Amino acid sequence: MNACPSDAYGSLERTFARIASVRDAIGVLNWDTETIMPDGAADGRSEQVSTLEGVAHRLLVAPQIRDLLESAEAAPRLDDWRQANLREMRRAYLHAAAVPDDLVEANSKAVSQSVMAWRQARKTSDFPMLRPYLQEVLDRQREIGAIKGEALGLSAYDALLDGYDPGMREARIDELFSDLRARLPSLIDESRALQASLPQLHDFPGPFPIEIQRRLGEKLMAAVGFDFERGRLDVSLHPFCGGATDDVRITSRYREQDFISGLMGVLHETGHALYEQGRPKGWSRQPVGSARGMTLHESQSLLIEMQACRSREFVEFLTPLLRDAFRAEGPAWSAGNLYRHLTRVRPGFIRVDADEVTYPAHILLRYGLEKAMIAGDLALNDLPTAFNDGMKALLGLDVPNDALGCLQDIHWPGGSWGYFPTYTLGAMAAAQLFKAARRADPGVIPGIGRGDFSPLRTWLRAHVHSRGSLANTDDLLQSATGRPLEAETFENHIRQRYLSSAE
Amino acid sequence: MNACPSDAYGSLERTFARIASVRDAIGVLNWDTETIMPDGAADGRSEQVSTLEGVAHRLLVAPQIRDLLESAEAAPRLDDWRQANLREMRRAYLHAAAVPDDLVEANSKAVSQSVMAWRQARKTSDFPMLRPYLQEVLDRQREIGAIKGEALGLSAYDALLDGYDPGMREARIDELFSDLRARLPSLIDESRALQASLPQLHDFPGPFPIEIQRRLGEKLMAAVGFDFERGRLDVSLHPFCGGATDDVRITSRYREQDFISGLMGVLHETGHALYEQGRPKGWSRQPVGSARGMTLHESQSLLIEMQACRSREFVEFLTPLLRDAFRAEGPAWSAGNLYRHLTRVRPGFIRVDADEVTYPAHILLRYGLEKAMIAGDLALNDLPTAFNDGMKALLGLDVPNDALGCLQDIHWPGGSWGYFPTYTLGAMAAAQLFKAARRADPGVIPGIGRGDFSPLRTWLRAHVHSRGSLANTDDLLQSATGRPLEAETFENHIRQRYLSSAE
Repeated sequence: MNACPSDAYGSLERTFARIASVRDAIGVLNWDTETIMPDGAADGRSEQVSTLEGVAHRLLVAPQIRDLLESAEAAPRLDDWRQANLREMRRAYLHAAAVPDDLVEANSKAVSQSVMAWRQARKTSDFPMLRPYLQEVLDRQREIGAIKGEALGLSAYDALLDGYDPGMREARIDELFSDLRARLPSLIDESRALQASLPQLHDFPGPFPIEIQRRLGEKLMAAVGFDFERGRLDVSLHPFCGGATDDVRITSRYREQDFISGLMGVLHETGHALYEQGRPKGWSRQPVGSARGMTLHESQSLLIEMQACRSREFVEFLTPLLRDAFRAEGPAWSAGNLYRHLTRVRPGFIRVDADEVTYPAHILLRYGLEKAMIAGDLALNDLPTAFNDGMKALLGLDVPNDALGCLQDIHWPGGSWGYFPTYTLGAMAAAQLFKAARRADPGVIPGIGRGDFSPLRTWLRAHVHSRGSLANTDDLLQSATGRPLEAETFENHIRQRYLSSAE
Repeated sequence: MNACPSDAYGSLERTFARIASVRDAIGVLNWDTETIMPDGAADGRSEQVSTLEGVAHRLLVAPQIRDLLESAEAAPRLDDWRQANLREMRRAYLHAAAVPDDLVEANSKAVSQSVMAWRQARKTSDFPMLRPYLQEVLDRQREIGAIKGEALGLSAYDALLDGYDPGMREARIDELFSDLRARLPSLIDESRALQASLPQLHDFPGPFPIEIQRRLGEKLMAAVGFDFERGRLDVSLHPFCGGATDDVRITSRYREQDFISGLMGVLHETGHALYEQGRPKGWSRQPVGSARGMTLHESQSLLIEMQACRSREFVEFLTPLLRDAFRAEGPAWSAGNLYRHLTRVRPGFIRVDADEVTYPAHILLRYGLEKAMIAGDLALNDLPTAFNDGMKALLGLDVPNDALGCLQDIHWPGGSWGYFPTYTLGAMAAAQLFKAARRADPGVIPGIGRGDFSPLRTWLRAHVHSRGSLANTDDLLQSATGRPLEAETFENHIRQRYLSSAE
């Protein structure tokens, strides 16, 4: 059957809307799994999700999609949004159709076994126990990279990267990371030396009742601009932002002895959520209406958490709220002391606990290692040593065991190769976007100081959120900030926050 | 492609397992919609659910299913469970494939508009406003009944009934309901006269904090045997039992001034949940592993709520728990007074608020009316008058407006024609099953008196829950109780509880 060209695009929109609805359903189910599902439902849930993933995959790779894409691409040029939507449909189709079903299945199976082994191996710091499972995942990822690369005209690692940040390439990242890699150790040393010269920090005496932390989190989410009519806040083991279109669900976790990690978790995920809630209205169930990749997604969470909410201005606003909420007083509860806590630089083994100065070191290390593993230049046997050597070189730390080293993250056993660099690329984009917003609207910083994020949010809505996947990361940054992605603004931000003399 | 007969059955099992997973996903999404979904997510959610319903429908009516069914049916006879599974697959296929897509769609559309109109019409007691929408639904239901009836060799109403209680027929219900219809008015009058002769009831002085009601509900669920590893209790506007395989989620609603309705709601839904949690293990995602229709489902909720938990023995167990939970004392808090509250007979307009003696009157009325409407013997214009005449004849009540009359239930605007009789058929089955359980195990009643439902539950597991859809309602009752479905045991139960002289 040959679709008439003029109808082809419309047919594609209808099919992609159905795919989006199936994916939305998966999003809600996954949220449920992490938050409130009873334990005994786990097997049934994984059947539900894998069945729906199969449904979405088959809708996407159906032969008529290929025909419709060809007809639509041969038709006269559409308007910008539709043209970009068609481009994103093609991209989604190429990524999905490139990988044969048996490889998809082999990868899923390898990942699920490897993640199970990893949970065990991390507990006992037993890399050799994980190694054969991880090898299976690595082999499948190399195959997937190669086969997608062939379809997309890319190297294997670039093809994997393209799944997380469309258009992002290894050569571009090398360029962005090279300066940082050279300068980072001295940035860390200097900021630590400066902080060591200051008077001692005051600790915050707990406990901090969890219900109060949660309510304060909700209050801050509302201030930042989270729309509770179209989303929720809940609790899970690891904070995340999930759910569905117009149903954006974030989570955090709380510790009675430490309010900072729970609240900062809420604010980080709120940044992700603003992006999702601000997607272009008419396009919410089309590829072009999706958030543009993980680099920009991470830029939005880091912009809210790191750039805005660890700023002096926000800390001035936050401190009295905390004092009231916890009915606290004493020397710890000054804005100055809280600010120093929120900007403390301390090299450590665990990536997810890292501050914003040392964080890039964790990423530079993982990026270099995964590139080499995908290229076949680093064998898994040599991974622990390579990892530990990197930690020594970048952070000056001696990794005492693999649980605190190459076993700490789920990404590699979980089959997310090519994902790590987007964290630091996102930090760079966040610095650029925040700078551009401040420059465009002098009300941004005073607003944040009052807990009024609307000037910042208005700018982000216009220049990032509502753009969906219209442009790639570099092009979006170019039109939003006047520059493509670059390391310099991020380095300047670090210098300004951590190396300027004022306490 | 002709499937090899020996493989055909296996292929069908795999496809029906996928269908079950999609339906499980829908079950969780529907639960989410009624309990915790943010309001703004409603449109997206209905897209998700209708997309997944379309997916399940298309999997079921695919041409290869017809071929596989034919091959499997032509193959040598399978063992009992597989043979019954194949029969249920055929039944599901016939029901689904009989109705052409455009009629499915026209019905869905009519139902969704009619339900919207009904919400409005009920508020303002405006039947004429609903009538055209309801006519549309009735016309589509008559069409569906006729077209399914042709495929199944049944009348239109029987074909609709068969969708709710497979194998149940109008002639059988007429037979079961005829005695009851004759005797019910006098049963009601006599029980009311007896209750009027007793000293005045003591009211329970509230408020009853909702968190305490909820915790008590959980405690009673655990006593009855709800498995919290495979289920949850939450709150919704209308209590229901939903969720998925090994993930059975019930809800209740609580009122501060009345603990009885919330707790009885919990116990009623727990009866439904036990059935779902007790489905035959190896067959949970196959048609034969499903609960057998709404008559038996309702029998399980009524057995727990009405037969067991409104018994004198359970009330003796419950009363001190209530006193402790609410820190209550005084004359109201005797088992005798609570028992009289739980068994009070009071004819009223609203079906869902009815006691177990007057409840069948509501059903007899609706059953007669919907049969006549499907047969074309009663026009919608005449429905309000016919409804009100029936209320007068059966309960002696003058319906003051249609909101308290034929507008009160969602079933007809919601397209659930043929559903109503299963409530009273379920009450009959509950009485028979409870009697058989007591006879088989003398420990059932003493157990209930201690809050230990395990003897009852063990019997129900063996004779009802674990049977899935192996037999139809009559055959299951025959093997569980020695008799097919009958009205007599239910009438005896009513006589014993409401017409024996002892207070």
